[in-house]
Amino acid sequence: MATSGIDAVRARLAARPRPADLAARRERLDSLGADYALPADVSVAPAGIGDVPAEWTRTPAADPARVLLFLHGGGYISGSLASHRHMVAEAGRQAGARTLAVAYRLAPEHPFPAALDDALAAYRGLLALGIAPGAVALAGESAGGGLALATLGRLREAGDPLPGCLWCSSPWVDLALTGGSLASKDAVDPLIHRGYLAELAADYLQGTDPRDPRVSPLYADLAGLPPTLIQVGSAETLLDDAVRLAGAAGAADVAVTLEVWPHMIHAWHLFHPELAEGRASLASAGRFVRAALDRRAGG
Amino acid sequence: MATSGIDAVRARLAARPRPADLAARRERLDSLGADYALPADVSVAPAGIGDVPAEWTRTPAADPARVLLFLHGGGYISGSLASHRHMVAEAGRQAGARTLAVAYRLAPEHPFPAALDDALAAYRGLLALGIAPGAVALAGESAGGGLALATLGRLREAGDPLPGCLWCSSPWVDLALTGGSLASKDAVDPLIHRGYLAELAADYLQGTDPRDPRVSPLYADLAGLPPTLIQVGSAETLLDDAVRLAGAAGAADVAVTLEVWPHMIHAWHLFHPELAEGRASLASAGRFVRAALDRRAGG
Repeated sequence: MATSGIDAVRARLAARPRPADLAARRERLDSLGADYALPADVSVAPAGIGDVPAEWTRTPAADPARVLLFLHGGGYISGSLASHRHMVAEAGRQAGARTLAVAYRLAPEHPFPAALDDALAAYRGLLALGIAPGAVALAGESAGGGLALATLGRLREAGDPLPGCLWCSSPWVDLALTGGSLASKDAVDPLIHRGYLAELAADYLQGTDPRDPRVSPLYADLAGLPPTLIQVGSAETLLDDAVRLAGAAGAADVAVTLEVWPHMIHAWHLFHPELAEGRASLASAGRFVRAALDRRAGG
Repeated sequence: MATSGIDAVRARLAARPRPADLAARRERLDSLGADYALPADVSVAPAGIGDVPAEWTRTPAADPARVLLFLHGGGYISGSLASHRHMVAEAGRQAGARTLAVAYRLAPEHPFPAALDDALAAYRGLLALGIAPGAVALAGESAGGGLALATLGRLREAGDPLPGCLWCSSPWVDLALTGGSLASKDAVDPLIHRGYLAELAADYLQGTDPRDPRVSPLYADLAGLPPTLIQVGSAETLLDDAVRLAGAAGAADVAVTLEVWPHMIHAWHLFHPELAEGRASLASAGRFVRAALDRRAGG
C-alpha cells in the first residue's frame, strides 16, 4: 500500500463512522486491523497463558528470550488479537522481541477488574514459562496503556518482579475525564470524544470510582515503575492524559520519555502500513525497548 | 575523576553554598565549570559573532557544517563561556557538530531584552557566515532554555529561517513562578528555590510583565517550533516548567520529546565528568541533534 499520510487515514475513518451497536463496534475495529495484510515473515501461534487466550508473533531476527507483552486498545469494550495483530507484529520486529498479545475479557460483559486480572495472569504466566522479568517489555495502547499501568501497580503491591520497561501509546489513564485536551482537541480528534469516553468508562467501571488508581493510574503512586516511554499524537483529546502521566511518573522519579507526534490521531500506529509516522513511531518504540532491555541485561 | 554519582555532586554543592554577592555568585558558577579539565582533543577559539562575544569549540569528528548554538544558564545574571565550556564541548562531540557558545549580556546591568537581542544577533551572525539554518541546533540550559525559545519566537515573527532543532535542558520558561513543583520539589532541589528565582526574575525583568511571552515562553504561541528535546531532572523545582512546556509545545503540533531523568538535579549535565547520568543525557541529546539535522539534510 502506498504511503498516503494522515489525511488519507482520516478520510477512510470518516467514510466508516463508529456504529452504536456493540457487536458492530467490535467488528469495525477488528476489520480496521484485518484490512492490512500481515507480512509473510511474521509467524503467528495461538497461546493460552495463565488461562487467558493470547497469541505469539515472531519475526525472523527477534530474540526468543525477549517478549513484548501487549495489551490492545478499544476502550475496554472492543479490540482483539485480530484488530492489533499487524501492529503488534511490527512493534515486535522493531523491538527485536517475540510478542505476546493478550485477549483480556471485555466490558460490559466483564467489567473491572476482569481485564486487570487477565493482564496480571498473562504476565505471571509468561514468567512461569521461564522468561526473565527484565526481558519483558510491557506495552499497551489507549485503554491497554491504562491497563498496563494498573497491572504494574498490582505487581508492585504483590511484590512480583517488574518487567524491564513500559511502552504506552495514546494511553487512557483518567476515567474521570478531567484532561483539558478533551475540550481543546475535540474539534481535531476524529475518533475520541467526551461522550464516547463517558460511555466506555461506565461500561468498564459499573460502579467503581473513576479516580480509583486501579482504573485511572493517573491517580496512582507511580514510584518504582520501570523506564517508560509514552507516545501520543497532538491531534488527540487524550493528549493531556499522556502529558499528565509523564509529569506524574517523572515526579515519582521514574525514567520517563514523552513523545508528542504532530498531527497524529489516536492510536495512529494501527495505520502504519500506510502512514510513515506510524512506522517511525514503532521504530522509536522499538529502539526504546531494545535499549531498556539491553540495560537490564547488563548489555 | 572517578564516577561518583549524584550524591557526591550534592555533597560538593552543599560544601560550597551560593553566596549573596553578585560577583561572588558569578565566580562560583564559573569555577564550578573550570574545575573540570577540558579533554585534550577539544579545540577552542574565540569568536565575535554579530558583535556578541562568543566561542567556538570543536572535537575531531565534528562536522564543520553543523553548529550547536548554545545559550548558557545562570538565571540571566551569571554563567559564562567559562562555566559551561566543558559541557558545551561534550555536547558538541555527542552531536557531531561544532559549538558556538554565546556570552550574552547579563542582568541586572543589562535587563531584558539585552540577552534576547544578543542571542538573536548571534544566530543571525552565524547564518551570515554561511551556515545553513537547518544545520543549526539551538540549545539552552535553564535560563538559556527560556532564552532559546524566546529567540525562536523573535525569529518566527521576523520571518527568519528557523534552526533545525531545539534542545533545552532544565529550562526556565515561567518567570511568573506558577509551577506546582516549585513547592513539591523544594525539599529535594539543592540549587533552585522560589526566593532565588524571584530575585533573578526581578533582575532580568525590571518591570517587564513576567507573563510576557518574550521572557516566559510558556505563555507564547509555540506553533512552528522545530523538533524539540526537553530534558529535566526529577529532583528539580523546575520540573513542571519542563512538563508544561512539553504539553504546550505538543498541543501546538510541535514534534516534542520530554525526558525526565530520575534523581537528577538542576543542570546536571554540568557535572558529567563525574556523573554517568550527565554523560548519558548528553549522549541522548547528541543522538537527538544528529537525527534531527540528518532529517533536515534529507539524510
